[in-house]
Amino acid sequence: MKQIRLGIAGCGIATRKLHLPALRELQDLFCVTALYNRTQTKAEALAETITSSPKIYNDFEKMLYSGEIDAVDISLAPELNFEFISKSIAAGIDVICEKPISINTAEGKKIVELAEGSDKVVYIAENLRHAARFKRASEVLQSGAVGQPCFATWQSWVNMSRSNEYVSTPWRKDPSHVGGYLSDGGVHHIAAIRTLVGDIDSVSAFAQMRSDYLGAEDTMACIMTTKSSSLVSYSVSYALHPCETVVKVIGPDGCILIGDSAVTVMKGEHEESYSVPPENTYKKEFADFYETLLGAKNLLGSPRSALKDLAVIEASLLSSKTGRTVPIDSLL
Amino acid sequence: MKQIRLGIAGCGIATRKLHLPALRELQDLFCVTALYNRTQTKAEALAETITSSPKIYNDFEKMLYSGEIDAVDISLAPELNFEFISKSIAAGIDVICEKPISINTAEGKKIVELAEGSDKVVYIAENLRHAARFKRASEVLQSGAVGQPCFATWQSWVNMSRSNEYVSTPWRKDPSHVGGYLSDGGVHHIAAIRTLVGDIDSVSAFAQMRSDYLGAEDTMACIMTTKSSSLVSYSVSYALHPCETVVKVIGPDGCILIGDSAVTVMKGEHEESYSVPPENTYKKEFADFYETLLGAKNLLGSPRSALKDLAVIEASLLSSKTGRTVPIDSLL
Repeated sequence: MKQIRLGIAGCGIATRKLHLPALRELQDLFCVTALYNRTQTKAEALAETITSSPKIYNDFEKMLYSGEIDAVDISLAPELNFEFISKSIAAGIDVICEKPISINTAEGKKIVELAEGSDKVVYIAENLRHAARFKRASEVLQSGAVGQPCFATWQSWVNMSRSNEYVSTPWRKDPSHVGGYLSDGGVHHIAAIRTLVGDIDSVSAFAQMRSDYLGAEDTMACIMTTKSSSLVSYSVSYALHPCETVVKVIGPDGCILIGDSAVTVMKGEHEESYSVPPENTYKKEFADFYETLLGAKNLLGSPRSALKDLAVIEASLLSSKTGRTVPIDSLL
Repeated sequence: MKQIRLGIAGCGIATRKLHLPALRELQDLFCVTALYNRTQTKAEALAETITSSPKIYNDFEKMLYSGEIDAVDISLAPELNFEFISKSIAAGIDVICEKPISINTAEGKKIVELAEGSDKVVYIAENLRHAARFKRASEVLQSGAVGQPCFATWQSWVNMSRSNEYVSTPWRKDPSHVGGYLSDGGVHHIAAIRTLVGDIDSVSAFAQMRSDYLGAEDTMACIMTTKSSSLVSYSVSYALHPCETVVKVIGPDGCILIGDSAVTVMKGEHEESYSVPPENTYKKEFADFYETLLGAKNLLGSPRSALKDLAVIEASLLSSKTGRTVPIDSLL
C-alpha cells in the first residue's frame, strides 16, 4: 500500500483538531512530510506534535515544488482556497481542501472548472457526507421504507459563544465567506440534507444577525424545494441557546428520525432503530481521499457537489435580501 | 346567572362533536333552544340528542326572529359565514361563529367591518386561543425565562385519510376556503403561534398538493417574520404519515417545548416542566363567549384576530404562487 506524502497548508483549528487526529489513525495511508504556514512559528509549534517531523515552510510554492509531497491538505481561510488550489494543480499536486469550497459560488465555480479541467484530484473535505447516520438514513429512504420522501426538516441550534475557539479565528470574525457561520456551518447541513433528499431546486429564507460578534447573519429560517419535489424546512442559529439538533424525513408511509447515534424509522406504532456507532468522519474522508488518489471516482469530495452545498446557503441569503424565491441553478 | 338562549346553525361535525359536548357542560350558561339546518331531517335527528329539545328550523331568519334565541352559534361551511353573521347582526342577535372566519381575507374583512360597526357580539371560535398549554407558554415567555423569543418552530403532521369523517364533508371536498385544509386546520396553528410570538409580519412558503382527494394544497413549508422580529418556521401536512406535533420557542437564554400535556422550559442542563391537565378548549371558548355577552372585552374571539390568522395562510399560498415574500398587512 503506497503511503502518500502529505503537505498540510494551514495550522488552524481544522488542522489541529480535525485533520491531524484523523491522519494519526491513517499512518499506513498518509505521512505528513511538510507543513506550511504564513507564520512560521505556528507551524514549528504544531510540527512538534507530529511524529513524522514534517519540514516547515512559510512559502507555499516552495512546499509544492519541494519534491517532498504527493498531495496537499489545504486548511486555510476559505478566501485563499482558489489561489492555493490553483497553485497546487499547477504544480501537479493532488488536493484535499477543507470545506467550504470557497467564499461564494462565483469563486467556487472557478475551482470546479479548474478541478474538472485537470487530471489532478481536487477533493473538498465535507465530513458530514461521510457520516454513517446520513448514509444509513439515505439507504433506508432508498429502500422505500417510508415511501418517496416528501418533507425533510432540519433544526440546528448552535451557540457560538464569545469564548468559543472558532469565534476568535480572525477570518471568522470578519468573514469574507457569504453569511459567515451560516455558510461555514451551513454547508455541512446542506451536504447532509442533499444526502437525504437529493439536490435542491429553489430556496426562500429569512436571515438575521442576532449576535454582535459573529460578523454576519447568524440565524436563518429557510425553506427549500428539491429536484424531486420534496419540501425541506431548515432552521439554524449560531447565536441562540443550544438545543438538540433534530433531523426528520417524512414520507407517505412513515418518517425517519436521524439522531447522533441512531436512525429510527417510525411507521404508525411500529418503530425500528438502527444504532450508529461513534465514528471519526474526518478519518473516513481522508481514507476516501486516498481511494480517489488511487483512481476511484471522486463522489463524496466532488467540488461540484461542494459548490451545490454553498449555493444553497448563498441563495438563501439572496432570498432573504430580495424577498424572492431563488432557484439554486441560477448560481451554478 | 342569566342563561343565554342559544340557536345553533348547522348540524355538521363541529356542532355534534365539538360544540354540543361543550354546551352540555355549560347548561347553567347556555340553553340550546333552536336548531337550524338546511336539511331539516338532519336537525331533527340531532335535536333528539339535546336534552333541552330545541325547536327545529330550516329557515335561518325565522330562527333569528323567533324571539326564542339571544345568541346564535354559526357552525356552517365557512363560505356561508358572512351571510349568516350579517343576518344575525341585522336581527340583533349576538354571534359565536366557528373558525375560519371566512373563506378568504377579502370576505373576512367584511365580517370584521360588520362586527366592529355593530354593538352586537361577533365572536370567532378559535379553540387553540384558549388552550392552556399555549397560554402557559406565553406567560413563561413574557416572564423573560428564556429572553426575548427569537425563533419558533411548529411542525404538524396530520393524516387526513380517505376514511376520515372530516374528509367526506362536501364543503371540505371541494373547498372554497383558501388552501382547503391548509386554512381549515392552519388557522388553529397560526392562532397558537401568534399567542406565543405575537403578530406575523411577513411570510414565504412552498405549498404542494400531495393527496388526490383533499381538494387543494395539503402540504406546506412556511417561514415567517414577526412584528417583534422573531423568526418562525411552520411545517404542515395533512397528507403524510402522522408524526408527533412539535412546537418550540427559542430565546437567547433557553427554549420552551410545548407538548400536549406539558410545557417544558430548558436552560442548559436545567429543565422545568409545567404539566397541563386535559381540558375542553371548546367549553372554554363558550364560557369566554358568555363573558363577552356580559360585557367583557372580546379578546380571544376577536374577528380581527381571526382575520390575522387566516391572512397568514392566505399570504403563504400567495407566496407559494408568486415566489415572493408576502407582507401580512397587504391582506388586512
